[in-house]
Amino acid sequence: MSVQKSAAPGKTHPDATRRSERSRRAIYDAALTLVGEVGYPKTTIEAIAARAGVGKQTIYRWWSSKADVLLEAFLDLGEQAAQAAGQESHAIPDTGDLAADLKAVLRATVDELRDPKFEAPSRALAAEGVVNEELGRVFVTKLLEPSLQLYVDRLRSAQEAGDIRPDVDPRIALELFVSPLAQRWLQHTAPFSYDYTDTLVDYALYGLAPR
Amino acid sequence: MSVQKSAAPGKTHPDATRRSERSRRAIYDAALTLVGEVGYPKTTIEAIAARAGVGKQTIYRWWSSKADVLLEAFLDLGEQAAQAAGQESHAIPDTGDLAADLKAVLRATVDELRDPKFEAPSRALAAEGVVNEELGRVFVTKLLEPSLQLYVDRLRSAQEAGDIRPDVDPRIALELFVSPLAQRWLQHTAPFSYDYTDTLVDYALYGLAPR
Repeated sequence: MSVQKSAAPGKTHPDATRRSERSRRAIYDAALTLVGEVGYPKTTIEAIAARAGVGKQTIYRWWSSKADVLLEAFLDLGEQAAQAAGQESHAIPDTGDLAADLKAVLRATVDELRDPKFEAPSRALAAEGVVNEELGRVFVTKLLEPSLQLYVDRLRSAQEAGDIRPDVDPRIALELFVSPLAQRWLQHTAPFSYDYTDTLVDYALYGLAPR
Repeated sequence: MSVQKSAAPGKTHPDATRRSERSRRAIYDAALTLVGEVGYPKTTIEAIAARAGVGKQTIYRWWSSKADVLLEAFLDLGEQAAQAAGQESHAIPDTGDLAADLKAVLRATVDELRDPKFEAPSRALAAEGVVNEELGRVFVTKLLEPSLQLYVDRLRSAQEAGDIRPDVDPRIALELFVSPLAQRWLQHTAPFSYDYTDTLVDYALYGLAPR
C-alpha cells in the first residue's frame, strides 16, 4: 500500500497546489459518498474519478487502489471532525477523574456515530470488513486500532494513579465499554444514548458483583 | 413475514412428509451455502431453488421471501448445533457459580464462531444487517435477542442469589462480555480464545477498579 501525497505534482507552485488540494478533496468526497450509496464492491476508481470530475490517472498518480483512497478519505474525515470539535490532540483527557473522562469521550463517540456524513460510508466499509477479512484488517489496523490505543494510554495512566487494578490488561479492558456501543451501532441490537454509555463505564469500572 | 410450515402439503401421508422434509432441508442448505458464497443481495429465491433442486413455487408455497427462508435456515442450524451438543434446553446452566456458568457458555460460543458451517452464512448476513437496517432488525429480533435473553435470565437469578448488584440492568450487563467477543469476530479487531472470554467475565463481574 503506497500513499504518495508527497509526490503530488505542483508542490512548488501555489496555483497548482491549490488545484491539487481541490482535486484531492473532491476525490475524498466522491469516494465517501459513493461507498455509502452503492457499497464497497461497486465503488470503483472509475466511478470515483467520474464523480470527482477528475481523470482516472489523477487518482492512480496519488493512490494505488480504492482501499487506499478510502483509507485516506476516512483519516481526513476524522481529522476534520477533530478540528471542528476544537481538539488539538487526539489523546483522551486526563482530569484525574477516570469515569468522567471515559464518559466524555464515549458521549462524543455517540455524537459521531449519529453524524450522517460519517454514518453511510462507515457502515458500508464496516459491512465489507465483516466478509472481506483482508480489507477489514487493514482498516482496523489503520483506523480503529489507533483510536483504541488512546484508551490503552488513558487506562495505563489510571493504573499508575491506582484507579485500575495493576493486573488488568488495558487492551481487553477498554472493550467492556467500547464494544457494546460498537455492537449496538453495527447490528442495530438496541438504541444507544449518553445514559447508556455512562452506565457502561460505571459497570466496567465497579463491576457487576456487589462490592 | 408469514412462515407457513404447517401449510406444507402431505402432512397426512408419510412418504409425502418425507419428501417435504427432504426438500425443506435441501432449501435450507442451499440458502445458507449461497448467502455464504455470494452474499445476501445475490442470494435469490431462483438461485436457492436451482441449487436445492426444487421448483421456485415450492419455496414460495412455504415462505414469503428469501429473508424468511434464511431466518428459518439459521434457526434450524442453531437447533441442530444444540442437539449435536446434547443440549435439551437452551437455558444457561445455573450451577450456583455465576462466573463458571458464564465462562462455559462463552467458550461454547467461541467454538460456534469457529465452525465453518456457521461462519460464512453468518458473516454474510451480519454484513447485510450493518447496511440494511430493516433486515438487521428482523434478524436481531428473531435470532440474536432470544439468545441474549438467556443471559438476562441467568443474570436475574444471580441477582436473586446476591451475586449481582440489585441496581444492575441485566440487558446492559450482558454486553460487557458478549459484545467484545462479537466485535472481535465481526470486525477482526483481534484474535479470541477461551482465555480471552474467561478474562472478560472476570473483568465484568469484579470491575476494573481495585476492590
